[in-house]
Amino acid sequence: MTTKELIDQIKIKKSFLCVGLDVDLNKIPKHLLELEDPIFEFNKAIIDATHDLAVSYKPNTAFYEAYGIKGWISLQKTINYINENYPDIFTIADAKRGDIGNTSSMYAKAFFEDLNFDSVTVAPYMGKDSVEPFLAFENKHTIMLALTSNEGAFDFQTLNVDGKELYKQVLETSKTWKNSENLMYVVGATKAEYFTEIRKIVPDSFLLVPGVGAQGGSLQEVCKYGMNANVGLLINSSRAIIYASNGTDFAEKAKEEALKMQEEMEGILTP
Amino acid sequence: MTTKELIDQIKIKKSFLCVGLDVDLNKIPKHLLELEDPIFEFNKAIIDATHDLAVSYKPNTAFYEAYGIKGWISLQKTINYINENYPDIFTIADAKRGDIGNTSSMYAKAFFEDLNFDSVTVAPYMGKDSVEPFLAFENKHTIMLALTSNEGAFDFQTLNVDGKELYKQVLETSKTWKNSENLMYVVGATKAEYFTEIRKIVPDSFLLVPGVGAQGGSLQEVCKYGMNANVGLLINSSRAIIYASNGTDFAEKAKEEALKMQEEMEGILTP
Repeated sequence: MTTKELIDQIKIKKSFLCVGLDVDLNKIPKHLLELEDPIFEFNKAIIDATHDLAVSYKPNTAFYEAYGIKGWISLQKTINYINENYPDIFTIADAKRGDIGNTSSMYAKAFFEDLNFDSVTVAPYMGKDSVEPFLAFENKHTIMLALTSNEGAFDFQTLNVDGKELYKQVLETSKTWKNSENLMYVVGATKAEYFTEIRKIVPDSFLLVPGVGAQGGSLQEVCKYGMNANVGLLINSSRAIIYASNGTDFAEKAKEEALKMQEEMEGILTP
Repeated sequence: MTTKELIDQIKIKKSFLCVGLDVDLNKIPKHLLELEDPIFEFNKAIIDATHDLAVSYKPNTAFYEAYGIKGWISLQKTINYINENYPDIFTIADAKRGDIGNTSSMYAKAFFEDLNFDSVTVAPYMGKDSVEPFLAFENKHTIMLALTSNEGAFDFQTLNVDGKELYKQVLETSKTWKNSENLMYVVGATKAEYFTEIRKIVPDSFLLVPGVGAQGGSLQEVCKYGMNANVGLLINSSRAIIYASNGTDFAEKAKEEALKMQEEMEGILTP
């Protein structure tokens, strides 16, 4: 998917919502556990119920890998289901990968070719040659960790590096990499005041924003400081939507929660 | 496996060699491609030929994920084969994972429980709560990126943070984390002179050292500056061993290369 197509979808749906498919067998409705592939059945119901309210889905690979081969099959079925039924959805493999050059190429192949995701999240620690193999794919997007929403973000990301915080250096350095126009960034919503500074460095890039809702961030605050002329934000919500109910009405309740988010977003987009 | 058991194996085998199982279908002998699971058959032959010369095997997950579900099956068969036939081997999932707390717990479950590796590599960028879930597993080891062997290592890892390089701060901070005795570190061999500084911060930890051979590092130099009383090093070699030949003699040639490494190591251990 091109960035323009993503922006068009945001305008059509009046939504920049990304639904995180972090599916834990201990948290999904009990009645699904009798089915052959509970994780896929859960995802399918959530996607069918929310696809007109969200522009993106983001399975976190950890939740699939934890179930081994069965989990990987659930992931493959999920991405295939989205690509076949809802091709206008922007898909994100939240994998946070990164390795030396030839190895990163294998990860890029895994997520962009074998699974056919539109984008993948990557970690910056290993630098340029760990990220550029992802950037080489046309109309695919590489979403690099900049400032994350967890407590540990303050261990290294905000350390002072020659007068500026490390995450700012990460943003600036990444702009010099080949095909950097294919970069987006992860910026946690728990730190809305940081968005002003971040927009000075990457005014035009899309930012994937976790941490709204369950982790305490405010949608209004994030949009106030982080939105650009093309919206430039994908707001992720996982638990608040997918675990809105753990009864047989889980998909319906998920839709209600997604609708609340979409309506709040519509209010911001067309005040 | 406990650290003591690893040290015992090093003494018994007079080797601290780790063989990297980075298996690319384009590089393995053509005759294997006719088999049902060429990657597993390749690994099995390499492991059978070298298990008395190496103390560790390290599949890099990227090379398996690139082949989707089939690749994940090859990975599972490989780790099962090692655990069943060579339980004295220290196994490393080179996965470079890291995410927020509850998500990292899922990755830890994937590699320590589902696949039953002895250790996994992780990335430090997201800080304490992204690594501690791995450290919570008893007799499992978490190998964190410190200073890597690739060109991009100089993008961020060696930046000056309040008077010291970032990778040193990463080492120091990680020592304060809960169960930090379960930490090992990745330190690239291409930078042997750095080992002196690193040993001042983590004198007792094991270091996993890629970059000897194909990437240009010297075993003698690494040992001179990096070895401690318990050896404290695992030297990884991938391509130089596993792709020593791409004919039907590939396992035999791999053994010859592994033997060269083991003999050089024995010479260092018992001069």
